Amino acid sequence: MKTLASLSKAQLLDMEKKLSENYEEFKSRNIKLDMSRGKPSSDQLNLSNSILSAPLDNYMTEQGIDARNYGILDGIDEVKRLFSELLDIPSENMIIGGNSSLNLIYDAMARLYIFGALGSTPWGKLDKVKILCPVPGYDRHFAICEEFGFEMVNIPMKKDGPDMDMVESMAKNDPAVKGIMCVPLYSNPDGTCYSEETVIRLAGMETAAEDFKIFWDNAYGIHHVFKQVSLYNIFDACRRFRTEDRILYFFSTSKITFPGSGIALVAAGDEYIKEIKLHFGRQTIGYDKINQLRVYNYFKNVDGMLEHMAALAKELKPKFSIVLETLNQEFEDTDMLQWTKPLGGYFVSVNTMSHCAKETVRLAKEAGLSLTSAGATYPYGKDPLDQNIRIAPSYPTCDELELAMQLFCICVKLAAVRKVLEYK
Amino acid sequence: MKTLASLSKAQLLDMEKKLSENYEEFKSRNIKLDMSRGKPSSDQLNLSNSILSAPLDNYMTEQGIDARNYGILDGIDEVKRLFSELLDIPSENMIIGGNSSLNLIYDAMARLYIFGALGSTPWGKLDKVKILCPVPGYDRHFAICEEFGFEMVNIPMKKDGPDMDMVESMAKNDPAVKGIMCVPLYSNPDGTCYSEETVIRLAGMETAAEDFKIFWDNAYGIHHVFKQVSLYNIFDACRRFRTEDRILYFFSTSKITFPGSGIALVAAGDEYIKEIKLHFGRQTIGYDKINQLRVYNYFKNVDGMLEHMAALAKELKPKFSIVLETLNQEFEDTDMLQWTKPLGGYFVSVNTMSHCAKETVRLAKEAGLSLTSAGATYPYGKDPLDQNIRIAPSYPTCDELELAMQLFCICVKLAAVRKVLEYK
Repeated sequence: MKTLASLSKAQLLDMEKKLSENYEEFKSRNIKLDMSRGKPSSDQLNLSNSILSAPLDNYMTEQGIDARNYGILDGIDEVKRLFSELLDIPSENMIIGGNSSLNLIYDAMARLYIFGALGSTPWGKLDKVKILCPVPGYDRHFAICEEFGFEMVNIPMKKDGPDMDMVESMAKNDPAVKGIMCVPLYSNPDGTCYSEETVIRLAGMETAAEDFKIFWDNAYGIHHVFKQVSLYNIFDACRRFRTEDRILYFFSTSKITFPGSGIALVAAGDEYIKEIKLHFGRQTIGYDKINQLRVYNYFKNVDGMLEHMAALAKELKPKFSIVLETLNQEFEDTDMLQWTKPLGGYFVSVNTMSHCAKETVRLAKEAGLSLTSAGATYPYGKDPLDQNIRIAPSYPTCDELELAMQLFCICVKLAAVRKVLEYK
Repeated sequence: MKTLASLSKAQLLDMEKKLSENYEEFKSRNIKLDMSRGKPSSDQLNLSNSILSAPLDNYMTEQGIDARNYGILDGIDEVKRLFSELLDIPSENMIIGGNSSLNLIYDAMARLYIFGALGSTPWGKLDKVKILCPVPGYDRHFAICEEFGFEMVNIPMKKDGPDMDMVESMAKNDPAVKGIMCVPLYSNPDGTCYSEETVIRLAGMETAAEDFKIFWDNAYGIHHVFKQVSLYNIFDACRRFRTEDRILYFFSTSKITFPGSGIALVAAGDEYIKEIKLHFGRQTIGYDKINQLRVYNYFKNVDGMLEHMAALAKELKPKFSIVLETLNQEFEDTDMLQWTKPLGGYFVSVNTMSHCAKETVRLAKEAGLSLTSAGATYPYGKDPLDQNIRIAPSYPTCDELELAMQLFCICVKLAAVRKVLEYK
């Protein structure tokens, strides 16, 4: 590998000049591209359009309940069965929520803050609550922890999940450590898949806090793109250790059908789900059963869901390929960029040279390409090495994405060369 | 008026015997009727069926935003405009929420518990928080206050709203008094409409708590049945006294279109709504814009909503009439029952003789008629005189309702006669 630092100042200056020219040329094109969020493209959304166009002629649920009226707190039976079969979680352990799993996560945190869990001290009454945050991770998880004043502790992400030695040690020794935020399959942004061993260690580890919670945000649980990675069932793992009540499992169809018009679920162990249902019973009379029926009618069963996901993967695959191939062409055998090669999910995570991420994002922005803010993938927006950038390839068309990646690569290189020049 | 107590024991025993016979005859019919909740009837729901059957061909909002995708935290412009015109609240002061105004109320309480408001001490950090509760009132409001451990203080409901002398005195002198729960038009269960004077006094009163909140649950804001009562605009009133930030205004279409599949809103003063939006931005990526579009397409404008409400009133009017006429026939000039004569809303509230409500409800239940639990209309389920019962006439058909009211009257009388006999 040829490192930038090994080049002479003259060579670097020459590179900088050429890159600057390329960059200025891009800027003059006045392009406007958005890769800032994990948004589905119009083509991807079109796959689900029959949810919009299909009239809902039958509004009676399988149980003969009029979905138009009040009633049913925890979701209609057919949807619970669908998710139960898909995720291998008993129906009794889940509540079908509204349109947002993020909202369910927020509410779960709020409940722990106000009420504790199963008789424990409310987290809001404690001097300090720490949440383990595998990094890089999902900015909206961090925003929720910050909202409640919980201290986030960075846990390095390894190939098969968070650094479990560190997680176990902190959970065991510090009673203030109350939970861990996990996106266990095709994690945001790394695309990391938690191994069976990781899941079992999370389930079995000793925790100083009696009410330790694993926030299991399985947002990409069926978002296989290149390969179908299977996730070890955390309910099975926890049953083995009788720790089911540390699970807070979240899932939604937001990234499957329509963001904002999907259905979300929360699931937990036998005892804790009962307590959650009591609180839900005061928080709402029930979620949108009509939407539950509409989404159910579209999928009908697990096979229907998986077929849909295969079509969705077909949309996403060429986009991931553009990103990965471009990065490979431009950065193989250089020290300017490292990146993940996810098998599914929604993101590619890259690491620039140290202290180059912010500048790369700034350059891109100035030339018309919006990226996720540098730092966003770390708690408090503080990436200690200022190197991680999340690439979200789903929203642009393939043509736009090719253009965006060309520009992105120029920005990465320009930031890197300029950074190395500072020390020459 | 002929009081029961003025009758001789023999007369009472004779009455009791005849009523018991009638009651047993009813029981033998094995009827099963439900007047327990304010649920719309199937006929009422049918009015909105085109929301279910109409395909949503255009998923672009007025602003040209794809409603299928992420984005827009506070609701699509067309829905905000609709509610803004309907309720005379500026669009900027509202957030269109999910399917449940109750959920918005719960979340509003949770936010105050956790964060306080505009820099005030979080309510959860205070030794005591008191909420003024006009009684009789809505059981689910009380359940929320109880959930957060807020002490509920009964405020007698008068003809034009809560006893404002008492409200003003408590709010002024006790800094622990943090709010008041209001259903200002056609209140649940009394059907009371707050007068202009009441609204202005609520807006202008001195409060010891800097973060006093008026929970303004305008659930029946357009549910005119016999007459259109207009509600003085609390925003106008508060602007006069610069107290807009004490408003927490809630509205929803749950009792207009479909319970559970409607859209809800929360509105507040200029400063406080900004703070609420910040919290919403961490709680969710956005609410269901597809459903917002569907509901909007059905109504199109305020006239469309009012036309719909006129049709709905046509459904409700004969039901209210059955209840009111039956009560009049059976109880005029007796001391066995008092009742309200609401001009709109969803309920009729009755007061039995003291200590007869529970027994009346029990008798009805035993004969197949479910009523709202006695006591439910009071905080902690404690009706001090055990006399109030909420009648919810919307759900049964007119035939069922006539039958139910016959049975109900027998139960009221039987409980009353037996109670008086205890003292003879």
